[in-house]
Amino acid sequence: MYRTKTNGELRLSDAGTTVTLAGWVQRTRKFGGMTFVDLRDRYGITQLVFNEEHDASLCEQANKLGREWVIQVIGEVSERSNKNPNIPTGDIEILVKTLNILNESITPPFTIEDNSDGGDDIRMKYRYLDIRRSCVRQNLELRHKFAFEVRRYLDEQGFLEIETPILVNSTPEGARDFVVPSRMNPGQFYALPQSPQTLKQLLMVAGMDRYFQIVKCFRDEDLRADRQPEFTQIDCEMSYVEQEDILQMFEGMSRHLFKAIKGIDIPALPRMTWADAMKNYGSDKPDTRFGMTFVELKNNQPDNASREIVESIFPAGFTVFDEAAYIGAICCEGQAVYTRKQIDQLTDFVKRPQIGAKGLVYARVQEDGSVKSSVDKFYTPETLEVLKNKMNAKAGDLILILSGSDAMKVRKQLCELRLEMGSRMGLRDKSKYSCLWVIDFPMYEWSDEEQRLMAMHHPFTSPKPEDIPLLDTDPASVRANAYDMVVNGVEVGGGSIRIHDAKLQQKIFEILGFTPEQAQQKFGFLMNAFKYGAPPHGGLAYGLDRFVSLFAELDSIRDCIAFPKNNSGRDVMLDAPGFIDQSQLDELCLQVALPAEEK
Amino acid sequence: MYRTKTNGELRLSDAGTTVTLAGWVQRTRKFGGMTFVDLRDRYGITQLVFNEEHDASLCEQANKLGREWVIQVIGEVSERSNKNPNIPTGDIEILVKTLNILNESITPPFTIEDNSDGGDDIRMKYRYLDIRRSCVRQNLELRHKFAFEVRRYLDEQGFLEIETPILVNSTPEGARDFVVPSRMNPGQFYALPQSPQTLKQLLMVAGMDRYFQIVKCFRDEDLRADRQPEFTQIDCEMSYVEQEDILQMFEGMSRHLFKAIKGIDIPALPRMTWADAMKNYGSDKPDTRFGMTFVELKNNQPDNASREIVESIFPAGFTVFDEAAYIGAICCEGQAVYTRKQIDQLTDFVKRPQIGAKGLVYARVQEDGSVKSSVDKFYTPETLEVLKNKMNAKAGDLILILSGSDAMKVRKQLCELRLEMGSRMGLRDKSKYSCLWVIDFPMYEWSDEEQRLMAMHHPFTSPKPEDIPLLDTDPASVRANAYDMVVNGVEVGGGSIRIHDAKLQQKIFEILGFTPEQAQQKFGFLMNAFKYGAPPHGGLAYGLDRFVSLFAELDSIRDCIAFPKNNSGRDVMLDAPGFIDQSQLDELCLQVALPAEEK
Repeated sequence: MYRTKTNGELRLSDAGTTVTLAGWVQRTRKFGGMTFVDLRDRYGITQLVFNEEHDASLCEQANKLGREWVIQVIGEVSERSNKNPNIPTGDIEILVKTLNILNESITPPFTIEDNSDGGDDIRMKYRYLDIRRSCVRQNLELRHKFAFEVRRYLDEQGFLEIETPILVNSTPEGARDFVVPSRMNPGQFYALPQSPQTLKQLLMVAGMDRYFQIVKCFRDEDLRADRQPEFTQIDCEMSYVEQEDILQMFEGMSRHLFKAIKGIDIPALPRMTWADAMKNYGSDKPDTRFGMTFVELKNNQPDNASREIVESIFPAGFTVFDEAAYIGAICCEGQAVYTRKQIDQLTDFVKRPQIGAKGLVYARVQEDGSVKSSVDKFYTPETLEVLKNKMNAKAGDLILILSGSDAMKVRKQLCELRLEMGSRMGLRDKSKYSCLWVIDFPMYEWSDEEQRLMAMHHPFTSPKPEDIPLLDTDPASVRANAYDMVVNGVEVGGGSIRIHDAKLQQKIFEILGFTPEQAQQKFGFLMNAFKYGAPPHGGLAYGLDRFVSLFAELDSIRDCIAFPKNNSGRDVMLDAPGFIDQSQLDELCLQVALPAEEK
Repeated sequence: MYRTKTNGELRLSDAGTTVTLAGWVQRTRKFGGMTFVDLRDRYGITQLVFNEEHDASLCEQANKLGREWVIQVIGEVSERSNKNPNIPTGDIEILVKTLNILNESITPPFTIEDNSDGGDDIRMKYRYLDIRRSCVRQNLELRHKFAFEVRRYLDEQGFLEIETPILVNSTPEGARDFVVPSRMNPGQFYALPQSPQTLKQLLMVAGMDRYFQIVKCFRDEDLRADRQPEFTQIDCEMSYVEQEDILQMFEGMSRHLFKAIKGIDIPALPRMTWADAMKNYGSDKPDTRFGMTFVELKNNQPDNASREIVESIFPAGFTVFDEAAYIGAICCEGQAVYTRKQIDQLTDFVKRPQIGAKGLVYARVQEDGSVKSSVDKFYTPETLEVLKNKMNAKAGDLILILSGSDAMKVRKQLCELRLEMGSRMGLRDKSKYSCLWVIDFPMYEWSDEEQRLMAMHHPFTSPKPEDIPLLDTDPASVRANAYDMVVNGVEVGGGSIRIHDAKLQQKIFEILGFTPEQAQQKFGFLMNAFKYGAPPHGGLAYGLDRFVSLFAELDSIRDCIAFPKNNSGRDVMLDAPGFIDQSQLDELCLQVALPAEEK
């Protein structure tokens, strides 16, 4: 061992002892005849002192140390005159007697400090240096602890972690597979799993009863900001359970994680139906750290989210509202102070193509209780008073109103506006957590593209028993035994009770428009297994990267992944992917055929 | 929940309580007016009783239950008159009041019993039924527990589990990579990691200090009996350590695993040099459950395994021995009773092409102490007496002798013969464990094929400091700071201290015959990282599948893998790999070009 202690553990009580330390030179400072070196390792920083008077040549050696050199020192622990209360070892320093240079370092391309001078690209290229920064290191430490506590909890609950293969066949998951050519089976390909969905259901058929796995999954998608081509899932499945059992079990897991890792006692998770989430938040993953829920001012387009017709509170007069199928609003407490310029910014925000609203109507409740709005000329003060009361608005509040011909689209726009206002009003504190279950998802959603109902979750999801009769009469209104866990507006996990009855499965396939032959061709493998006594079962999967980034209070999942890929799916550190030899292609019986412009 | 209890937990103390159970019908038996059903789940088997007198229609229902049907029952726990001491629930049975058929099953293709009537192929095809057999299930339970205890131990020792990517670049590991075409980077390929070797060394450069990962690795090799294209490694690396620190740490882990999982206190692991292992056992992974070590009767070919010349104990006369460079023998206690036919079998065994010996010489020590051998006509009784003494043989022992022109080849043949005799003599009991470290591996081995020295471990392995001067004078004799953990003749893990000094690394590359340019091209990526202050570090990796199969007392690693692949790399259950659509190939800019005979 090159050390007797780490750089994070020495305290005043160690004063007088002789220790051997090793680590990286964080920085050196000269003061008169003294040279101070901050020595760093994973565990902390310890101050080393070299005294010219005591040992001039040793001190000279120390003066030559560069940033990030790797050294070993032997010295005596001594009380510091000038204590540093910001670090745990701040009471002591090491009076160095022996200095051993283990390795030199050329100058790093950026400073290894919490506030680095390195941009994203350079830090990713030299990720092995980036990870030396304590803010990055702490994310990886948190991730380790998180995964370990997941395992501890699930092990205690009788779950078995079972590894499923990575070289599999195409799964009916919907996204694009990564494929792996098989040399031993020329012309054939493995697929990398988008999730172990099929395999975990087979493990239930196999009687394994309670399965989990922390496992890499792969999707060859065009990457958005917060997606990675390979990501990690906490994948779980249980037999002989109903939805309630799963909600209880995994609510328990979340509670354990918050307590063990963050020291937070989270309250029992509220359950919100998908319909309520859409109606009140315009999202199936509502950020419930703050209120500002939607008020429907008009809705003549009943749907799965809101089955009631709401008569408009506005008399005819303003064409936009008159022609709207849906008018919804939020009340922003104390924001009547918003200037015209700020309102214009908000209007631009909702009109951005990603959001797509046509415009924004606002109403300020003034100090005297009267309402001043952007639609004053169309409506009487009495109508605006009705608005104020309907919105439960008080003096100083700002009401923001969106409308349109498609209720669901307007809700989603209003959702973005609500989140934007929440951020501006400081209501989305990353260190506060609001967790809930969203339940009762619809079984199907209509696809304009495919002109048919599509499975919202996946085709093995069980309908709610009480809705089964509706499969024949009104399939679009059938609710599923499906559930998502949402934390701070992020879907951290989701799952469903699966269908274990072959006849019901058949019917679901019919509604999805599969002929028996197509169903057999696409899902026959799992359906065959189900003929041998499939138990009732269900499960869920968490996105580990996402869950950990919430715990680490990060903006992006990338920061809690040791070696992430960029938006083109490249690992810039490894410089992967890359070209391979023709001989390797030949062995795989493959030819690369680039389109002309890429050659 | 479909049950209040599992099928493994009811005891006599539960008699009188009403329970709900669910599971699979293992078998049904009729006795007079009673029907008995064995109900099975992961936790055990519970006997259900249906009484025709009490409820004729319920009993009739029970009589219709088929094997592997999934049922739920409610009933009263009752003491059994005819107790079954072989199962933990054998004292009780359930007097069923309600029977609920949850799912039917068609007849399984083989019996779901420990002694199944299904052959390997059919069991692999229906692996989800095979896993229902308790002998298979127990292997997966053991594997879960094993991995969990590995994590518990390493977490306690301050190791962080850090996930490294699966989509990487080609690694300098030696075997063939699986590759993954990148759609977003046309014509380019990711490689699946053969091990995270490079990445874990980068994590040491990154200051993570103690890393581990239980991780899938991939090698596209032609599969031998006990290899899988994807396998799982316990991958570990530590900074600021010397070899001794690593041996201590991982000996501790093995001790913890044996204790926690098998309840066995293993003794401190002996350390055997590679030279002694080769000299005495003819293998770098000696099975030390039994002795029967080699005796050199002649060796005029000193090498790294045995540097001493041993004069032949045999005077000239028998050409085979006269011309041999090496004669080695083992003494098989009490085996003088071997018949001529048995000896002939052994001779055939060593002459098989996989072993390749030219013949086998034997000598029996008879009851009167005299020696009767197959070479009596060449040697005097005095010479045979010398042999007997040299072999430490006593009356009733059988001496088996191999010889040849290449000491190392003969040792390997003699190793096979020793193992065969160990098996025949019942000395290789799977429930007994003998663990050791094999240390001081040579840095290099000569490759006849490449006509150069090759790295025995990998090119980052550090030489023993005291052997560094030999790099210039006699590189073939340089020993490495490399070590393997061997259990019962199986290499379960191995690793090395890595080189962290750029100049030493340079020299090693030179000896391996790389020009600086070649070294830069092949390993430049890691060498560049090492310029920024690489700490001294080292590590090792265990084969999880192999280690678990030893604990499970299995012959093949396949039996402790949920969904293994066959020798052609196929998953016969999933029917993977398979063909993919032309459109998918087009997206990847690939064409399949099968050789004519395979089209």
